[in-house]
Amino acid sequence: MTPAFATEAVDGDARTGTLMTAHGAVRTPAFMPVGTHATVKALHPDEVRATGVDILLCNAYHLALRPGIDLIERAGGLQAFMGWDHPILTDSGGYQLVSLAEVAAVDEGGATFVSPYDGSRLRVTPEEAVRNQARLGADVLMCLDHPVAHGTAPDVARDATDRTHRWAERCRAVHPGDGRLLFGIAQGGFDAGARRDSARCIAGLDFDGVAIGGLSVGEPLETMLAMTEASVSEMPGDRPRYFMGLGTDSELLAAIALGVDMFDCVVPTRLARNGSALTPDGRLSLRNAAARDDFGPIDPECPCAACTGFSRAYLRHLFQSGEILAHRLVSLHNITHLARLMEETRGAIGNGTFEAFRADRDGRLRSAPR
Amino acid sequence: MTPAFATEAVDGDARTGTLMTAHGAVRTPAFMPVGTHATVKALHPDEVRATGVDILLCNAYHLALRPGIDLIERAGGLQAFMGWDHPILTDSGGYQLVSLAEVAAVDEGGATFVSPYDGSRLRVTPEEAVRNQARLGADVLMCLDHPVAHGTAPDVARDATDRTHRWAERCRAVHPGDGRLLFGIAQGGFDAGARRDSARCIAGLDFDGVAIGGLSVGEPLETMLAMTEASVSEMPGDRPRYFMGLGTDSELLAAIALGVDMFDCVVPTRLARNGSALTPDGRLSLRNAAARDDFGPIDPECPCAACTGFSRAYLRHLFQSGEILAHRLVSLHNITHLARLMEETRGAIGNGTFEAFRADRDGRLRSAPR
Repeated sequence: MTPAFATEAVDGDARTGTLMTAHGAVRTPAFMPVGTHATVKALHPDEVRATGVDILLCNAYHLALRPGIDLIERAGGLQAFMGWDHPILTDSGGYQLVSLAEVAAVDEGGATFVSPYDGSRLRVTPEEAVRNQARLGADVLMCLDHPVAHGTAPDVARDATDRTHRWAERCRAVHPGDGRLLFGIAQGGFDAGARRDSARCIAGLDFDGVAIGGLSVGEPLETMLAMTEASVSEMPGDRPRYFMGLGTDSELLAAIALGVDMFDCVVPTRLARNGSALTPDGRLSLRNAAARDDFGPIDPECPCAACTGFSRAYLRHLFQSGEILAHRLVSLHNITHLARLMEETRGAIGNGTFEAFRADRDGRLRSAPR
Repeated sequence: MTPAFATEAVDGDARTGTLMTAHGAVRTPAFMPVGTHATVKALHPDEVRATGVDILLCNAYHLALRPGIDLIERAGGLQAFMGWDHPILTDSGGYQLVSLAEVAAVDEGGATFVSPYDGSRLRVTPEEAVRNQARLGADVLMCLDHPVAHGTAPDVARDATDRTHRWAERCRAVHPGDGRLLFGIAQGGFDAGARRDSARCIAGLDFDGVAIGGLSVGEPLETMLAMTEASVSEMPGDRPRYFMGLGTDSELLAAIALGVDMFDCVVPTRLARNGSALTPDGRLSLRNAAARDDFGPIDPECPCAACTGFSRAYLRHLFQSGEILAHRLVSLHNITHLARLMEETRGAIGNGTFEAFRADRDGRLRSAPR
């Protein structure tokens, strides 16, 4: 069997590669926009594709609650349901054990959630998490894991990491095959030794890819990078490495420098809806008075529909008026910005100039007027 | 000088024609989507264009308050500002004397509004109303008029109609020329004689088009149609006739049968945002449980992006989840529906089959399951 992932260029620890899925290729390093509820907020799937993005993330936990796994399966799977005939990675719901801790309970068998919509109980075992994602039609399935919040007591964190390992074995045992890829998730809290141990344990289960979970949850940047480095050090070079829930331009480039291949983040679309546009020279607030009569685009070098068609002044007017088109255009821009950052990063790694590229981008961000 | 409007086919009192503007042709009967704040809510201007719509309505009153006439003028006019390089008609603010009566005051000189944003006063005289619209870059400018609410005492309505006539003369005296068209607005309250008198008075001022104002404000359908018939009877056949603020499929066809050429309405986009889709067989609520596992499109004959790409089940899921894409897709569908209704109407008038077409459409709507 052909391996799903092939690395291409290597530059230091950074690398480019291709992950082959049943719905097409994912060029890495890759940024995945988040479509929690089977839609990237405010955007048509064809627009998302046109930004240069290869793969989306959807959330199996949220979709199980609404509209339900059955319905999406009967619709022909997520791709048919949401009009995106390209790769999809689904998150298992593990992260919701942190983000929705007040409605979630964990036992050795699995996780139990209370639906915020109707109070019903949703039970997810590791086996069901995998099965549900396969029924959704995802190309890349994530194991059910047990992350913890930053600041959790070490023994509680250790317990959760151990459980993550046992759950990973159970997930691995029900790998659906059938062209679908299953990724393990390494935890380990905020201890480098535990991070290495967890990565080694997950790597030993021979998943199609390995994720770094439980980071970028409020810890200092140095901690995050140290934990990432520790995790990556025990991950196989021939599998894709996925940092869950990152991030800013600088953070993405720092993680890529450590050998990470895949990312997802809600921030670019969330920032967009708040009026904040990403540029190589930092964030631009379109709600600020400075934009009021600025007839230039967000970023003159950006080819997106917002930058080629509309001025900062118009976008500010739309935000001031509470108009949906503002959310659309800036969401489209922010995703385009990150897709282009990944494209340029892949080019720089291919040319062996990644560190210079990274230094240049970081320099521009540091010298940005605030 | 070539007249701006040419009628083409006539079928009973219904007719087709073309209104030539500085930004291109408007095929009539025409439906104008409303872009109050220089955006048709939730839609990109290229999408609006692709529905088959020739002309938009924007609101000079709202734009004067925010972002201001100056700013839009400096941006190069409304077309450049909002990315719509096609005809635009602007409303003058007269209608806001009814819809925003609590913040508006009328005297013989003009209207005074209190800004809901900062409490500042906005004074609009008939002359300024025309001048502001010309500065915005509109192709079709509307006179400042003084409509009244349904149920207003006859003497108050008569007073407002008389004022509308004096203001129309003042507007006519400052017609900017320069390729822009200026439309007069006939009032007359809910008295057929007063409607005829007002239409005759406005027609006598030789505007580029004549509008019927102050209807579809809560009066019974028969009253509305009787008032429309009375107004049209005194309007010149060689000028476009514009019914302000209509309407449903049946109402549009009824007004077209009386000889009306142009329409605008916020209803299709407002309904869309509430989850209601227009079809030839009546309104379809995408929030209803019936849509839950309906994998068919809103309207199998509709070529819009919502109907060709997404199921009712998916759209219902988006509404249930509060997702912006729902508002986009159904807004696009509803405008496409009305653009197609106008296109089919023009075809039927051209073929001399308008009454049969109208009877068929009304029959389908009447027999629609509710």
